[in-house]
Amino acid sequence: MSSGLTKLINNAVPGVAKLHPYLPGKPVDELARELGLDPKDIVKLASNENPLGPSKAVLTAIEAELSELTRYPDGNGFELKSALSEHFALTAEQITLGNGSNDVLDLIARTFLQSGTNAVFSQYAFAVYPISTQAVGADLNIVPARDYAHNLDAMAAAINAQTRVVFLANPNNPTGTMFDVAEFKSFMSKVPEDVVVVLDEAYSEYVSDENYPDGIELLPLYPNLIVTRTFSKAYGLASLRVGWAASAPEIADLLNRVRQPFNVDSLALAAAKAALQDEEYLAASKELNSKGMAQIIQALEARGLGYIPSKGNFITVDFARETSEINQSFLKQGVILRPVANYGMPNHLRVSIGTQEENQRFIDVLNEMELDG
Amino acid sequence: MSSGLTKLINNAVPGVAKLHPYLPGKPVDELARELGLDPKDIVKLASNENPLGPSKAVLTAIEAELSELTRYPDGNGFELKSALSEHFALTAEQITLGNGSNDVLDLIARTFLQSGTNAVFSQYAFAVYPISTQAVGADLNIVPARDYAHNLDAMAAAINAQTRVVFLANPNNPTGTMFDVAEFKSFMSKVPEDVVVVLDEAYSEYVSDENYPDGIELLPLYPNLIVTRTFSKAYGLASLRVGWAASAPEIADLLNRVRQPFNVDSLALAAAKAALQDEEYLAASKELNSKGMAQIIQALEARGLGYIPSKGNFITVDFARETSEINQSFLKQGVILRPVANYGMPNHLRVSIGTQEENQRFIDVLNEMELDG
Repeated sequence: MSSGLTKLINNAVPGVAKLHPYLPGKPVDELARELGLDPKDIVKLASNENPLGPSKAVLTAIEAELSELTRYPDGNGFELKSALSEHFALTAEQITLGNGSNDVLDLIARTFLQSGTNAVFSQYAFAVYPISTQAVGADLNIVPARDYAHNLDAMAAAINAQTRVVFLANPNNPTGTMFDVAEFKSFMSKVPEDVVVVLDEAYSEYVSDENYPDGIELLPLYPNLIVTRTFSKAYGLASLRVGWAASAPEIADLLNRVRQPFNVDSLALAAAKAALQDEEYLAASKELNSKGMAQIIQALEARGLGYIPSKGNFITVDFARETSEINQSFLKQGVILRPVANYGMPNHLRVSIGTQEENQRFIDVLNEMELDG
Repeated sequence: MSSGLTKLINNAVPGVAKLHPYLPGKPVDELARELGLDPKDIVKLASNENPLGPSKAVLTAIEAELSELTRYPDGNGFELKSALSEHFALTAEQITLGNGSNDVLDLIARTFLQSGTNAVFSQYAFAVYPISTQAVGADLNIVPARDYAHNLDAMAAAINAQTRVVFLANPNNPTGTMFDVAEFKSFMSKVPEDVVVVLDEAYSEYVSDENYPDGIELLPLYPNLIVTRTFSKAYGLASLRVGWAASAPEIADLLNRVRQPFNVDSLALAAAKAALQDEEYLAASKELNSKGMAQIIQALEARGLGYIPSKGNFITVDFARETSEINQSFLKQGVILRPVANYGMPNHLRVSIGTQEENQRFIDVLNEMELDG
């Protein structure tokens, strides 16, 4: 490396140079290339994707948009915002669209965090929170979890004068834990009004618990609340990258200033609108998930394995030993799971709920596996 | 607004609060809603889009990807990077993929700019340079243009100890001007080796001038050079948001740390790969553009209007008076042009080159317009 380039690299923003990029689930094609397998023989239960396959209404909406491929998207996302406003009783001015909820989380960090401030989040929380926080040079204020779940009392106590943002995930990823509406309200009563609370509800559609705090319904109570949602999970659009935030219009106005003008593409905008209106697909996704969750839990219990009870579309299994080799064994059998060692959970693997057949593939490989000794 | 919310808003990062969002070309559907027009009767020559319509090879590639809609994209963009590497004689490690080149420009700003540093760019340069620079709290170091073109000598002289990035656009948008290879090399010889030079070549495919400096070919000479390209113009994929940067691998490594892991979606990755390989489409785009440019220039000269000679797929017309009313007259006739008052050019309107019929609509409305007095 030339001395000029070395100096240039050293000039990079300090937070950026220290970043460890997000580790995604291994793509099917990548494993197929590595092991010389047919992609069709591979089962991916690594990224909490919807196993139902695409919604027909979504495919139709995409087809209808293809003739306009050479045109820029509507940077204001007029039609999708209208549909969301109607569906969730919000105004369009409360909505910020993102290239996946990752983008929305990043916009929040860029808007409210900088060097000298910090973000509070829980141990075992979603990996994007520390990445987005570090990228803007702010400090991580990480609060130890309680039984793999958010310790909301400790999180409230951790807020200090430099705290600008608290990230909460409910249910949490990668642990699947949930806090209830009473716990959330108690937490909010302790948060200073000028600290932004981000309630990441990427998995909310899977929750059937009547004590689940619906962030969008609670929004009128808390001007400092930002609720994030995604089309990547229950709505089945992970490939297309659509997430969004609901907040006070004043906050949305700031987020929309930082937002890249065409951050959500035309096919994604049309697909998300169709997905929102396809209630049958959403219901089928939830039903498939709840059956699959029962199927996998039964197998784990039969095998005597521990797991973290989950409200999401995944379950995190405790193998009671370091899991690198176990994960490799699954990969060799064409089953992709998600290691969570990077979350400080080296003994766990996260399993996304698939179709009945996909779950059975996981269970069969698990049952053939030597785990003792 | 509650006092808590006011304080929270005031706590936002200073650069963000001062941002004026990017002003996109008016979408066809928006004008149709506003004026009660049929979208089919509207001609949009506002966003330098490809008038040829989608490539068949691209449509086929998208169709083939639809069954995987519920899956996350390949975060490494393996196949598209392989195709780009082969096509441009680069290694995959030199490539950074972006959600449009807007995303790549933003990543560069986030990686190298912060409070206390500045970015050098030209008067009348692309609006994303100041937006991305301000969003990270860095200073704008704007150099007066010469005849609406980059004054490279003055830009080299403007670089100071706090300069981390220089943004160059060649051809420039919104003026269409070009600097040649000798001018570029002379400029680079004056730039300190630890200052990043971004050469934005969004419109490079339209240039037929033999003295045009091809940034990718010149990359081996300049370790501090980042070349950005887009699939939004000559490749006809504005809707899908794919841009990319070529640079030294050490720079690409930093940019990829800040990059959101799934910033380019699955359909976009597949479409871009197909577009890159569809050489007939690219050739047809260039031919249509060069004929359309001649058609419009002839009409402008017949009408006695001045214009900035352009190497891109657009031409910026000098109406020699403030153009708000002229622009409104075009809109009322269903012709969307691009005002450039926000670039400090209130007397100009930018016209994208369309199909022969679209160009004729513009010409007909122009010729019926009263411009004297």
